[in-house]
Amino acid sequence: MTDAQAAFAKPSPKQMADAIRVLAMDGVEKAKSGHPGMPMGMADVATVLYSKFLKFDASRPDWADRDRFILSAGHGSMLIYSLLHLTGYKDATREQLENFRQWGAKTAGHPEYGHMTGIETTTGPLGQGIANSVGFALAERHLAARFGSDLVDHRTWVIAGDGCLMEGVSQEAIALAGRLKLNKLCVMWDDNEITIDGKVSLSDNTDQLARFKASGWAVKAIDGHDHKQIQKALAWATKQSKPTLIACKTKIGKGAATMEGSHKTHGAALGATEIAATRQALHWSFDPFDLPEGIQKAWAKVGKQGAKARKGWEARLLNHAQRDDFTRAMAGDLPTGAFEALDAKLKELVSSQPALATRQSSGEALETVFNAIPELIGGSADLTGSNNTFVKNTQILDAPDYAGRYVNWGVREHGMASAMNGMALHGGVIPYAGTFMVFSDYSRPAIRLAALMGVRVVHVLTHDSIGLGEDGPTHQPVEHLAALRAIPNLMVFRPADTVEALECWQVALQHKKTPSGMCLSRQKTPAVRLTDAGENLSRKGAYELKAANGEAKVTLFGTGTEVALALKAAETLEAEGVPTRVVSVPCFELFEQQPKAYQDAVIGRGTVRVAVEAAIKQGWERFIGEDGGFVGLTGFGASAPAEVLYREFGITAEAVVEAAKARL
Amino acid sequence: MTDAQAAFAKPSPKQMADAIRVLAMDGVEKAKSGHPGMPMGMADVATVLYSKFLKFDASRPDWADRDRFILSAGHGSMLIYSLLHLTGYKDATREQLENFRQWGAKTAGHPEYGHMTGIETTTGPLGQGIANSVGFALAERHLAARFGSDLVDHRTWVIAGDGCLMEGVSQEAIALAGRLKLNKLCVMWDDNEITIDGKVSLSDNTDQLARFKASGWAVKAIDGHDHKQIQKALAWATKQSKPTLIACKTKIGKGAATMEGSHKTHGAALGATEIAATRQALHWSFDPFDLPEGIQKAWAKVGKQGAKARKGWEARLLNHAQRDDFTRAMAGDLPTGAFEALDAKLKELVSSQPALATRQSSGEALETVFNAIPELIGGSADLTGSNNTFVKNTQILDAPDYAGRYVNWGVREHGMASAMNGMALHGGVIPYAGTFMVFSDYSRPAIRLAALMGVRVVHVLTHDSIGLGEDGPTHQPVEHLAALRAIPNLMVFRPADTVEALECWQVALQHKKTPSGMCLSRQKTPAVRLTDAGENLSRKGAYELKAANGEAKVTLFGTGTEVALALKAAETLEAEGVPTRVVSVPCFELFEQQPKAYQDAVIGRGTVRVAVEAAIKQGWERFIGEDGGFVGLTGFGASAPAEVLYREFGITAEAVVEAAKARL
Repeated sequence: MTDAQAAFAKPSPKQMADAIRVLAMDGVEKAKSGHPGMPMGMADVATVLYSKFLKFDASRPDWADRDRFILSAGHGSMLIYSLLHLTGYKDATREQLENFRQWGAKTAGHPEYGHMTGIETTTGPLGQGIANSVGFALAERHLAARFGSDLVDHRTWVIAGDGCLMEGVSQEAIALAGRLKLNKLCVMWDDNEITIDGKVSLSDNTDQLARFKASGWAVKAIDGHDHKQIQKALAWATKQSKPTLIACKTKIGKGAATMEGSHKTHGAALGATEIAATRQALHWSFDPFDLPEGIQKAWAKVGKQGAKARKGWEARLLNHAQRDDFTRAMAGDLPTGAFEALDAKLKELVSSQPALATRQSSGEALETVFNAIPELIGGSADLTGSNNTFVKNTQILDAPDYAGRYVNWGVREHGMASAMNGMALHGGVIPYAGTFMVFSDYSRPAIRLAALMGVRVVHVLTHDSIGLGEDGPTHQPVEHLAALRAIPNLMVFRPADTVEALECWQVALQHKKTPSGMCLSRQKTPAVRLTDAGENLSRKGAYELKAANGEAKVTLFGTGTEVALALKAAETLEAEGVPTRVVSVPCFELFEQQPKAYQDAVIGRGTVRVAVEAAIKQGWERFIGEDGGFVGLTGFGASAPAEVLYREFGITAEAVVEAAKARL
Repeated sequence: MTDAQAAFAKPSPKQMADAIRVLAMDGVEKAKSGHPGMPMGMADVATVLYSKFLKFDASRPDWADRDRFILSAGHGSMLIYSLLHLTGYKDATREQLENFRQWGAKTAGHPEYGHMTGIETTTGPLGQGIANSVGFALAERHLAARFGSDLVDHRTWVIAGDGCLMEGVSQEAIALAGRLKLNKLCVMWDDNEITIDGKVSLSDNTDQLARFKASGWAVKAIDGHDHKQIQKALAWATKQSKPTLIACKTKIGKGAATMEGSHKTHGAALGATEIAATRQALHWSFDPFDLPEGIQKAWAKVGKQGAKARKGWEARLLNHAQRDDFTRAMAGDLPTGAFEALDAKLKELVSSQPALATRQSSGEALETVFNAIPELIGGSADLTGSNNTFVKNTQILDAPDYAGRYVNWGVREHGMASAMNGMALHGGVIPYAGTFMVFSDYSRPAIRLAALMGVRVVHVLTHDSIGLGEDGPTHQPVEHLAALRAIPNLMVFRPADTVEALECWQVALQHKKTPSGMCLSRQKTPAVRLTDAGENLSRKGAYELKAANGEAKVTLFGTGTEVALALKAAETLEAEGVPTRVVSVPCFELFEQQPKAYQDAVIGRGTVRVAVEAAIKQGWERFIGEDGGFVGLTGFGASAPAEVLYREFGITAEAVVEAAKARL
């Protein structure tokens, strides 16, 4: 052993933290891009957390009862990559660190869920991690109530930065966590007083401790470089009956020879000179990415210290009465017979289907699956009655027993959507929740992340058009169908009646890696699916609902409440001797996944094509071509009763007929 | 005078408030839709505010130095309609109240800016009003610094509900207001403990007073039905050196005979029986919308009591040295010569234009106009250096003197965008501010309202594609161009080089009633406009940048950094003997407004059409038809250097050539 190695033979906690500092510095330097300041600043806190508190076993990143660590300040991704590497996660290799931010590497600029094991959620857009964590912590409490603390008893630890706390979504998250008394949630705030533009005080002077306290948190401030204080604070956190905030006063870029404390360490490589000087100051004489043996061993030991607990847990699981159900739920598989009632209802409906608002149809779909799929957790952003998200007799999910299955999210669309992501990522639950469709704009950043991560959450978006009526243009989505359809890997459903609503719900729940938006009407609409197709037609995204009498001259496309208008228009055209098909399009995204031959057959090129949807045209050219007709909107709505709006904006069967005739 | 009339001959403040209650109840009843609970609950506070504190003159709703009243809880729109009617605003007629929520009426379900005078901003989406108000109050402070308190010295009063305070954007707003010491901002919180789903405590137990205090506000709690307490509290608010929160404990639906305090009064008509009983309880024996003379007179007097102050102000304006500048600025007109430097720069550029990132080009555009247009107020959500929004030597807009012209918004995209709306609505300033384009998702609800209201704000959205590089998919917009283009009345610009950037900025600033998004690259791009067109070509939305050599066989479309790729592809095609045009498309929205003949000429039907944009295809069919080629993305990006991403995702000149050839 060389002298250099000997100095690390039995590394101090400070030296173990320095390993993170050096790796972070090296990774960013090699990539010539990244954020070294935060990993260096929070290395001490992370070291104490991982070595003394975090329940995990690096060899089993999928251990269901592990503690969850969430790096809300995702730009500090080298912190988590370093930790996963040091503790021995299999795919956190040295090569991955060396390829930080490069094509094909698992070490993306911000931590990406699904790229490297040990990354619990994708973070980077500020505030999302802290809001996710509420979902993680809530899922834990619920599953503990369902399966017992023998199987479920873990904590959620979050590192958040000033940016996370400035984002509005953090307020929604902390208010929720406080209200729900999520005492196993601990946020370690990297209180370094620095943001990109300079000092935090340039734009903020909030007393964060007071703010969290006002929302029902237990709070504490410490020196984030003093390992004893950190240890004491984390121990304190585990004993509170409320969620905990620990303000960790740190220096950004801690350890950097001359740049420590400067916002210049935030978002750029330190440069060769500074790195050399820093190595010297840390007595770290090893090449980039090289680690002294003593450090390697000490950290590897940390990675293994949870093995015993994990094995004990596995033994408990093996003999647990609910073992199979727990394993199935955590795997995200649906119970056998999940759709028995739904299928029965479908059969029943095609013989007699009443006119309902599609939000009611969605409510009926939920009635058929809610008891059959105990993982379903409902909720609404304070619009329960309007969203039809509440299945009767459901217990509210709330402290102290957490066994309930319906969350009162409050007027917090963004926090709700972000927490839903956390719930789905935790596993064992399938969250769905409602708001008005227009407010999908509020939750959009979290919906995007659901799509990027590929998690199963269902957004129930009611009042899906000018059919909302009197509440007026602020509440009427007109561009939201297009805007949601624009998000890759998001299934945007707009069912036309109860049969389609049931089908769409089935598809949504069957897709384990795809979030859905269920777009639903406020107003009643007649049933359009009156015969038994023997299969789930909505699964194809679009299908011929009504064939033409004879060789089709016209194809009419519609979604949701406008399918009925298309059918009525087809009736008129047929009566005038124009053979007309009607295609219902419940989901653009799924249609794109069909074989080309099917797509061509459904689209019916060569026929006159007209689409009707109470929204803007964008995206419909895919179906109607450049010359097709479109009956919809070109601007915002207005305040008036729904039927008046449809008439005044010219979204009528007559207009559809006219658009077709003009092209015949 | 009848006995019934006599009882109101000299109405008490309580009786004046009852007039609001009855009108709100009647308006909602007639519409059979609306929200009576909040207007009834806050009638007392509103009565004291309007009769004792609000500086206004109903006959001159455009008086520049009026106090601003913002109903953040916009669903209580009958409160403001009643107040405007009672105080004598010309267009707040009885007929308008009777046509509440009907087609063509100015009394929309939620207050709509531009429909009825006296409505300062569109509210309804919760949290927006309170965030707007920060912009109103900041604009006031700035203009007072610029023009003196002789001309600018007014307050911003806000009524906000529980929903507003639960929304995350409210936290961004209150933190900003506290930091900026906006002491002339007063929020009256309707603390009625009720939301739609029931008691506030179902989803929230935040100590709001402590929360506001933590962000630097002065706070006070009162009985919101006790006129003396209200008066004392509002007087107190006018004397603070911080923004003020007054928690007004109220009963929702106050005055309703049996439903007072129930969430059932929130969002539905009370019904004939309850209304009759309530009339009796209030000793109000008049027909719907009928008002006793005494009430009419007393309220009309309130509407006129600001006339003297207004006249005094007009006299001061008449003799003010800065009269013309003030009047011009408040009218939203640009100074003479606003674009002299910009025009000069344009001429200079076409002879020698360097390769720049378009965010740098945008920065150069700002350099040419910032000093020429003193109304411009810049800012960034903590990405100043990245957004190129800061013009050198600009003073920061901050307490205590507020004369600066650059706002450190902090990591608060949503609050920033909403406050910008408030600034623009206040008048006298033209706000622009930056963030990464992907975070337009965070500010989207406010951008939508800017478009709906028609206000001039410019969102500088940098890092507009995978060209952002290593930060990865969380930070790379791929669907955002489509999603922003979907918003009606929003100009989404994506300039290709410095010439286009200058042109787009000119167009954005010249549109008084249209918000803009300026989508700008992180990475450098070669100049494409190398000759002097003698006009602002970007104004047309799309134009032929390069003609074909001979009869065009191919048309290539591109935007932003991809225009250079289209040009390169055209070169290859031309070299191979394929006459190829290139069309630059800096703004879809403006192109749609051109004459059809121009549109047809630019689109070039009959040629093979291919578009290239580092984003999803949605919306491009408008240009390329059903069979056109599209070189872009179908999903999310990845983390790697920009040039690697362009290559790996196949967004190259070669791919464009190939797409064209495949169709020839």
